[in-house]
Amino acid sequence: MKFPLRARLTAELFGSAFLVAAVVGSGIMGQRLAGGNVAIALLANTMATGAALLALILTFAPISGAHLNPAVTLAAAIERDLTWPEATAYVAVQCAGGVLGAVVANLMFALPSYSFSSHSRRGGAQALSEFVATFGLMAVIRGCSQLQASATPFAVASYIVAAYWFTASTSFANPAVTIARCLSDTFAGIRPADVPWFIVAQLAGGLAATLLFRWLVPRKLLPSRPRTTHADGSICG
Amino acid sequence: MKFPLRARLTAELFGSAFLVAAVVGSGIMGQRLAGGNVAIALLANTMATGAALLALILTFAPISGAHLNPAVTLAAAIERDLTWPEATAYVAVQCAGGVLGAVVANLMFALPSYSFSSHSRRGGAQALSEFVATFGLMAVIRGCSQLQASATPFAVASYIVAAYWFTASTSFANPAVTIARCLSDTFAGIRPADVPWFIVAQLAGGLAATLLFRWLVPRKLLPSRPRTTHADGSICG
Amino acid sequence: MKFPLRARLTAELFGSAFLVAAVVGSGIMGQRLAGGNVAIALLANTMATGAALLALILTFAPISGAHLNPAVTLAAAIERDLTWPEATAYVAVQCAGGVLGAVVANLMFALPSYSFSSHSRRGGAQALSEFVATFGLMAVIRGCSQLQASATPFAVASYIVAAYWFTASTSFANPAVTIARCLSDTFAGIRPADVPWFIVAQLAGGLAATLLFRWLVPRKLLPSRPRTTHADGSICG
Amino acid sequence: MKFPLRARLTAELFGSAFLVAAVVGSGIMGQRLAGGNVAIALLANTMATGAALLALILTFAPISGAHLNPAVTLAAAIERDLTWPEATAYVAVQCAGGVLGAVVANLMFALPSYSFSSHSRRGGAQALSEFVATFGLMAVIRGCSQLQASATPFAVASYIVAAYWFTASTSFANPAVTIARCLSDTFAGIRPADVPWFIVAQLAGGLAATLLFRWLVPRKLLPSRPRTTHADGSICG
Repeated sequence: MKFPLRARLTAELFGSAFLVAAVVGSGIMGQRLAGGNVAIALLANTMATGAALLALILTFAPISGAHLNPAVTLAAAIERDLTWPEATAYVAVQCAGGVLGAVVANLMFALPSYSFSSHSRRGGAQALSEFVATFGLMAVIRGCSQLQASATPFAVASYIVAAYWFTASTSFANPAVTIARCLSDTFAGIRPADVPWFIVAQLAGGLAATLLFRWLVPRKLLPSRPRTTHADGSICG
Repeated sequence: MKFPLRARLTAELFGSAFLVAAVVGSGIMGQRLAGGNVAIALLANTMATGAALLALILTFAPISGAHLNPAVTLAAAIERDLTWPEATAYVAVQCAGGVLGAVVANLMFALPSYSFSSHSRRGGAQALSEFVATFGLMAVIRGCSQLQASATPFAVASYIVAAYWFTASTSFANPAVTIARCLSDTFAGIRPADVPWFIVAQLAGGLAATLLFRWLVPRKLLPSRPRTTHADGSICG
Repeated sequence: MKFPLRARLTAELFGSAFLVAAVVGSGIMGQRLAGGNVAIALLANTMATGAALLALILTFAPISGAHLNPAVTLAAAIERDLTWPEATAYVAVQCAGGVLGAVVANLMFALPSYSFSSHSRRGGAQALSEFVATFGLMAVIRGCSQLQASATPFAVASYIVAAYWFTASTSFANPAVTIARCLSDTFAGIRPADVPWFIVAQLAGGLAATLLFRWLVPRKLLPSRPRTTHADGSICG
Repeated sequence: MKFPLRARLTAELFGSAFLVAAVVGSGIMGQRLAGGNVAIALLANTMATGAALLALILTFAPISGAHLNPAVTLAAAIERDLTWPEATAYVAVQCAGGVLGAVVANLMFALPSYSFSSHSRRGGAQALSEFVATFGLMAVIRGCSQLQASATPFAVASYIVAAYWFTASTSFANPAVTIARCLSDTFAGIRPADVPWFIVAQLAGGLAATLLFRWLVPRKLLPSRPRTTHADGSICG
């Protein structure tokens, strides 16, 4: 079943908005309730993000592939699962959805609709963290989606839950989410000046994993299956 | 396999009762044990609610569709998965089950069988939260149940886990549960005066998502499958 | 595939031992590390118990049905999924396995191999809690195993996670586990004098749910499937 | 689909590296944020480890079997799912991957690339814990992979989540991970002098469970299925 591009873009828009709302909103709630214990706030933030990702991927993957992430869309375009004009449109609505999600999260918690974050996330260790985080995310996506597609939503959500804790940057691993998170001066925020380095590290990590899996699991090894433009194989296989 | 209406209503009654017992009971336990840290109490409340939802939907979906929620039943009736008289009966037993669950939870913790909550949950941010929460819930249900039905119980439970944290209202998202929760003056309670605004916001959010998905995933795009009155497609597909 | 009785009893023995070791051991660890916050100790205890249940049911269900619980075995015998002599042997090894698990847990934490618990769990609210807990557990098992058997391990583990928090007794819901837990004077323990009341309430709750589901989902409604003595339908369907 | 040995070894290398990075990295993050509450740090460490395991097994199992553990590889060689030269190569890259993962975790948190741990984990109770932990892990793997292979990743990850709490040693249960964890003087570390005893107990526990399941589930009882050298049956069946 193939969905028209406007349905797929709508799915990416709402999916990205809810993803960022979940990240930012649960960060606010966690920080407000945790009484100063940052680990408890991050536990809540992690659980909410992982659970939201699972629900959103299960909901939107059959429609748009549920990329919700420019790095994933870029890899799909490189692997020709998506045309470049389609990929450009995907990235645009992912960024727009992310901003929408940050604004809605701020409003739900009675905050100004946006405010630039002052949360500094700078330095080599942070950049290495984002490289590793996105490398792992793309490895999980490229590996699972080609070899056991139905488990991909569970694998992606689980991976992000783990990466929130095992990287020093709490694993943004998503350029659209990174941009959106600089619009909320709360727990999950990031200072606008630090955004470019995060995005560079994310794209480099994602690209490296995509190339690794191109060699590790060559297309010719895979059981043949119908290819469609919209079913890009990265999430919904 | 089609179940008679009285079996389906029994399933909705017990399912709604256990759902509210889980929400209210785990709220009491969390508050008693958390030593004043509200985040820890809400973590416990979240985990118990999500886990109960998963178990209850898996158990009762094959019988009644496991709506357990008037907003879900209303959407099913609008989409003609259920007749209006059936929907009315569903809503009635969901409310009765919810009240029963609140009473049982109170009694298990040696509290008076009911007491009206004094927990104020008022204002625009709360109403926006309930609109967003129910919009997202219905998007997950309408999306998953039509396109990958067997994953719906996992998607719904995950969504609620996330929404407990990313909305300022802790995502009631269910009119029957909202009514029942005003009968326990404990952690999960809601002041009776705030109930109507919650229900209006919930129904508006649910309706908006139902209409969005009617456009996004038109019935004519779906692989044809047998339609029955009881298998309403919203949960058990 | 039918397993001989001695293999099935071995599976019940090891499964019950690991289940009790998980309950008692994680209780000790949680209490030692939680710094006096009982909610955090119970969160750890809950997570460990639910996760152990899922792993153990997935491992042993294909062999013995993974009852690991005399209340489940009793229901299976009543529904003629198991003969009464088989059921008696199941219950005996479940109790033996539970005791073994409590002893191993004590030894892993360098405690005396056994010591009677002084943890009082008495009164009507506790008994009501155990009735409700076991009623719900048996509803989940009888409902899922007949209508969507492959999801049963997830439903059972989720249910217990929820019930640890929404019942005042933290949901023992298992006579063999109840007996074993009086052998460890630690977080998860129960005073020997309180054991009989727990078991009576558990058997009453389990029986009530079994009868409810006999009416709700009559055998004649189910798609016919091969019946074997060992695949009792309660877990591995 | 059979993968060449170099692809399988690459999968084991990256999988083991990410597994150790998850264990060590989340230990550092947990300890830094938990404000001295060890239970909260261990909750975070547990959640990250379990979630990483699930994602990594789902990703790499179709390629290499996703052993990520010399004890698992040893059992596979004993059961002739793998030749001994293949097993030796697997173990070598698992250890190399583990060391790489510890180094990357240290660097992500801006620590020296390695430092020997001073965390003492000595004594009979610790050794018993590792024996029990690995016995249980191998029981889950041998049981699930032969009888319901697709659930194995969920069963293994769940088991480890439980075992982190119900054993006194927090369940290393993996010789390659044990060696790597002596290279980080942080929360998850182990003093080099204690490593040999852990490995002996792990191999003994793994061997005992392998022999038990050889008797419990004889190959002749299993439905026949194609055997390949690479699909060793222990994880991806």
